[in-house]
Amino acid sequence: MSVRTPDPDPDWLPKGDTGVPNSNPAWLKDVELAEIRRRLPILYIEAVPVRVDGLGQVVEVGVLLRARPTGEMTRTLVSGRVMYGETLRDALFRHLEKDLGPMAFPQMPVSPIPFTVAEYFPLPGITAFTDDRQHAVSLAYVVPVTGTCDPRQDALEITWMTPEEAVSPGVSAEMEGGRGALLRAAMASVGLLR
Amino acid sequence: MSVRTPDPDPDWLPKGDTGVPNSNPAWLKDVELAEIRRRLPILYIEAVPVRVDGLGQVVEVGVLLRARPTGEMTRTLVSGRVMYGETLRDALFRHLEKDLGPMAFPQMPVSPIPFTVAEYFPLPGITAFTDDRQHAVSLAYVVPVTGTCDPRQDALEITWMTPEEAVSPGVSAEMEGGRGALLRAAMASVGLLR
Amino acid sequence: MSVRTPDPDPDWLPKGDTGVPNSNPAWLKDVELAEIRRRLPILYIEAVPVRVDGLGQVVEVGVLLRARPTGEMTRTLVSGRVMYGETLRDALFRHLEKDLGPMAFPQMPVSPIPFTVAEYFPLPGITAFTDDRQHAVSLAYVVPVTGTCDPRQDALEITWMTPEEAVSPGVSAEMEGGRGALLRAAMASVGLLR
Amino acid sequence: MSVRTPDPDPDWLPKGDTGVPNSNPAWLKDVELAEIRRRLPILYIEAVPVRVDGLGQVVEVGVLLRARPTGEMTRTLVSGRVMYGETLRDALFRHLEKDLGPMAFPQMPVSPIPFTVAEYFPLPGITAFTDDRQHAVSLAYVVPVTGTCDPRQDALEITWMTPEEAVSPGVSAEMEGGRGALLRAAMASVGLLR
Repeated sequence: MSVRTPDPDPDWLPKGDTGVPNSNPAWLKDVELAEIRRRLPILYIEAVPVRVDGLGQVVEVGVLLRARPTGEMTRTLVSGRVMYGETLRDALFRHLEKDLGPMAFPQMPVSPIPFTVAEYFPLPGITAFTDDRQHAVSLAYVVPVTGTCDPRQDALEITWMTPEEAVSPGVSAEMEGGRGALLRAAMASVGLLR
Repeated sequence: MSVRTPDPDPDWLPKGDTGVPNSNPAWLKDVELAEIRRRLPILYIEAVPVRVDGLGQVVEVGVLLRARPTGEMTRTLVSGRVMYGETLRDALFRHLEKDLGPMAFPQMPVSPIPFTVAEYFPLPGITAFTDDRQHAVSLAYVVPVTGTCDPRQDALEITWMTPEEAVSPGVSAEMEGGRGALLRAAMASVGLLR
Repeated sequence: MSVRTPDPDPDWLPKGDTGVPNSNPAWLKDVELAEIRRRLPILYIEAVPVRVDGLGQVVEVGVLLRARPTGEMTRTLVSGRVMYGETLRDALFRHLEKDLGPMAFPQMPVSPIPFTVAEYFPLPGITAFTDDRQHAVSLAYVVPVTGTCDPRQDALEITWMTPEEAVSPGVSAEMEGGRGALLRAAMASVGLLR
Repeated sequence: MSVRTPDPDPDWLPKGDTGVPNSNPAWLKDVELAEIRRRLPILYIEAVPVRVDGLGQVVEVGVLLRARPTGEMTRTLVSGRVMYGETLRDALFRHLEKDLGPMAFPQMPVSPIPFTVAEYFPLPGITAFTDDRQHAVSLAYVVPVTGTCDPRQDALEITWMTPEEAVSPGVSAEMEGGRGALLRAAMASVGLLR
């Protein structure tokens, strides 16, 4: 199974852009993006949303349920492209809001250092991760959310699980693009992989 | 100048302890602690309190001002010993509350991995850090605080500085035990050391 | 099953020590160490020995086989106490040599930041790790070795496994003190936990 | 001063490519690369070459001296683009060989987690880093080298400095694109920023 990360927010504009059509060279037509995707690795950010207790210990992990165009249901994480001119923080916040809604109130990481770097290739076997559309390199973060998550776009719902459930073989088998391995690395980074 | 980390909270008891005098073998008399300090490295946690903007970017750094028994004023960070039977999270939270007061509302780190490990030796020159009382090994974390800081015990006040001020030579010269280097490593870990 | 980390090298002396009996206050009699172990968390380092290919990718993981006094065979990792006056690097190198022999030629980590911090408590359930003798806090590193490993002391042999074997339930069940979780976190940190 | 990272090795071909002209869609003409650079963040890797002692402690830092087309001399680090279909390890090794020669014998990192992520923007002031050609995001690693460095391409020579010299204001002022900040973060990550 390969990943189907949603395409970036079409409303997004880099700082200082006027929004006048065609005025923004960073804006990519679908056909152009498809072309570039066969030529360059594409930079992504990913987030594992979690709920924490008063001591910062992860108690629940949020996994998104998504309907694919084929009607198949798959599970995934918060994920999306970094745009031209956009900082990693801006991209991470934008995708958290896009996937979890405006009331999730994420506690953004203070450090830009990811807990892992996931490499997605069209061909399986090179790493644990695949994406049939592109070569993507993703910086992954664990992000506590303190508000109410209300998935938007094509994410149907967010399922909250215990750390144990999140790394179970059943959930892993449903994760897009090999992201079960990303969940396990996330839980290892917070000291909760047993 | 060497470090004078405050001794641990005398009220602290490990989980399940009744508080009956002498019933707790983990409780150490001053003379015993002094003895052990010449025989074993002592485990510490340290925290750099920060204020962050909505994207998690550090905008201010909190540095404690402390009066030493000699009357000298020095600057330091949140710091303290890990007690027998206490988790690192418990120790970090306890010392944040002890040094910043109960209304600081720290956002505890989700990962136990520190941004650095600081090694304090009585003799200067082995590392950047010294502590004339002991060999201490400290796991250091950057911790956003969202509430009001009201230093207790012998910390007179907390001074909020920009990241640039916090790593300036003037502030470094006033930091106990070489902790100016710890502040610089903290700012590097959040991508703000220029 | 709880951990039985070997006691530290009795020949070890801090820098500058003459070796004259009783002249070294950091030297601990067995009875003293047993006493202190009920009063303070003890600082450990641990290492997961690995073999890497030319690109630094882990291809094999070394796990130690040890006979316990009861005759039971268990598996463990390179592990040992940090002594008074000893740097973390010195301790890591000393225990690598003690457990793998003088011809292992470890590539020591450049950074003191561990891939995880493991907390061992006498009581199970607080973390993934237990040690019936003490409360130990361990800084854990992945260390490539390039030479020949020849386990000494009570380690009978080192078994080289693929990363997949190392994190298998069978191997985990044989690891002392819950260290199967440490192996999984180690593999996650090198991008090899699928 | 802005960065002038050398363009990628023109001989590079992704795995499985035949090398027949125009058969490789990942091959980019200069004009195409220039176009894409105004539309997408470009993924880079960077390496700080170091020499270490037997305990892994950094004792020297390698900084490249480069003549710019204007004749100006600047200092930089090992740096280059990740190509389509190339793993991060392959890219890191390729650029180390390109910039340090085939006899440098780098000790490749076991973990894909960088010590920092540097964001380069054409406009100064957004981060510490600038690159007037593009928006680049760089994963940065400290890499011990054990052999002989013989810079190729447009790097004239490698200068070995102590960690203290490497982070001095004089060297920082000569570093391209703000990479003095990267050197300081590198030294902080190995516990050597005082």
